[in-house]
Amino acid sequence: MSEIVNFRTRSRDEVVDLTGHVRRAVESSRVREGICLIYCPHTTAGIAINEGCDPDVARDLLTVLDGLVPQQGPYRHAEGNTAAHVKAVLCGASQAVAVADGRLQLGQWQSIQFLEFDGPRERRVLVAVMEAGS
Amino acid sequence: MSEIVNFRTRSRDEVVDLTGHVRRAVESSRVREGICLIYCPHTTAGIAINEGCDPDVARDLLTVLDGLVPQQGPYRHAEGNTAAHVKAVLCGASQAVAVADGRLQLGQWQSIQFLEFDGPRERRVLVAVMEAGS
Amino acid sequence: MSEIVNFRTRSRDEVVDLTGHVRRAVESSRVREGICLIYCPHTTAGIAINEGCDPDVARDLLTVLDGLVPQQGPYRHAEGNTAAHVKAVLCGASQAVAVADGRLQLGQWQSIQFLEFDGPRERRVLVAVMEAGS
Repeated sequence: MSEIVNFRTRSRDEVVDLTGHVRRAVESSRVREGICLIYCPHTTAGIAINEGCDPDVARDLLTVLDGLVPQQGPYRHAEGNTAAHVKAVLCGASQAVAVADGRLQLGQWQSIQFLEFDGPRERRVLVAVMEAGS
Repeated sequence: MSEIVNFRTRSRDEVVDLTGHVRRAVESSRVREGICLIYCPHTTAGIAINEGCDPDVARDLLTVLDGLVPQQGPYRHAEGNTAAHVKAVLCGASQAVAVADGRLQLGQWQSIQFLEFDGPRERRVLVAVMEAGS
Repeated sequence: MSEIVNFRTRSRDEVVDLTGHVRRAVESSRVREGICLIYCPHTTAGIAINEGCDPDVARDLLTVLDGLVPQQGPYRHAEGNTAAHVKAVLCGASQAVAVADGRLQLGQWQSIQFLEFDGPRERRVLVAVMEAGS
C-alpha cells in the first residue's frame, strides 16, 4: 500500500520535486479510486503542493520563509535548527491528493515538492495510496 | 466519488464559502463513514477551515497574509503572482474532514473556505468523499 | 471508527501532546492499513506534527507565531481573537498520518500536537482511523 522514496539533499534549503515518484507509486498501487498521502517523517522538512514549472517559484518560497522565520533567533531550542522546525509546521508534514480512474488528480501546474529546511541530510518520504471502500 | 464545484472569483483576494457545496456532496455520496477531501487544483489559491460566522475573520486573514507576503517582491518569478503562490503553500491546497453517520464532522463555528489570492479567475474545487473500508 | 479526546487548556497559548492518545486510538481501532486523521473542530486552535522531544521547539513555535501575527491588530473582527484564527489557518485544522501493519507511521522525532491559541478553554479533538478498501 505504501512506498518509501529515499534521497539525499545537498544544501540547507532545497526543493526536491517528488511528482514523478508519486505518480509512479499511484500507478503501481493499481488503486482506482481513493486517496494518496505524501508524508514527511522528518521534523525539519515539509511537503508542499506548489507551482513546479518555474523553479523560481519554489526558490522565492524558500526566501520568503527565511524572511518570516529568521535562522538566528533568539530561540530557546539550542540545536540551531528552530527555524527549520517552524517552517516545517507552517508548510505541513503531508499533502493529500485524490486518486480517480487510477490517476492522481493534480492540477495542471501543481507539483508535489519536498521542502528541505535543515540539509544536507538523508531523507525519506512515505507515499501511501489507499483504495476507497465500497 | 467526487464532485467538482465551479465558480468565478471577482477580485484579487477573495474568500468563497464552500461549506454548503461540501455538505451536499457528502449527502449525495451516501458515504456513511469515511473522509472528505476538499482539494484546490490551482497554485495561486488555497483551502482553509476557518471561522465563517463573521466575514471579518476571513478578511483579516487576507490582510495578515498580505502583510506577511508582500505583493511586490523582490521576487525571481517574473509573472507578478509570487505572493499568491507562497500564500497558497502556507494555507494549503486541501483540507480533510471526517464523515461519520453520513455527516461532515465540522465544528460548530467552522466553515470550509476557498482562498483566492490571484483573481479574478475561473476556479474549480474537487470534493472527494471516500468510504472507509471494512 | 473515531474517538474524541477531551481536555482543558490552561493558558492563552499552549501545546498539548496528543501522540499517546492517537497511538491508543489506532490500536483500539484494529485498523491494519489505512489513514488516521487528527482533527480539531475549533477555529482558534490547530493540529501540528512537530518535534516533541524538546518542549522548547513548540515554545519557540508559539513565540514565532506571536511575532508573525500580533495579538493586537488593527483587525476588523471585534472579538479580540483574530490572531488565534489566523494562526489556526496557518498551522492547519488537521493532520493525517498513514497506518501500516496496525501502527501509526510517525517519524522518530515527530509528535502530534494540539496548538491552543485562545485558551484557556475546554477543547476536543477527533481521531478518525479509517481502513483502506480492498
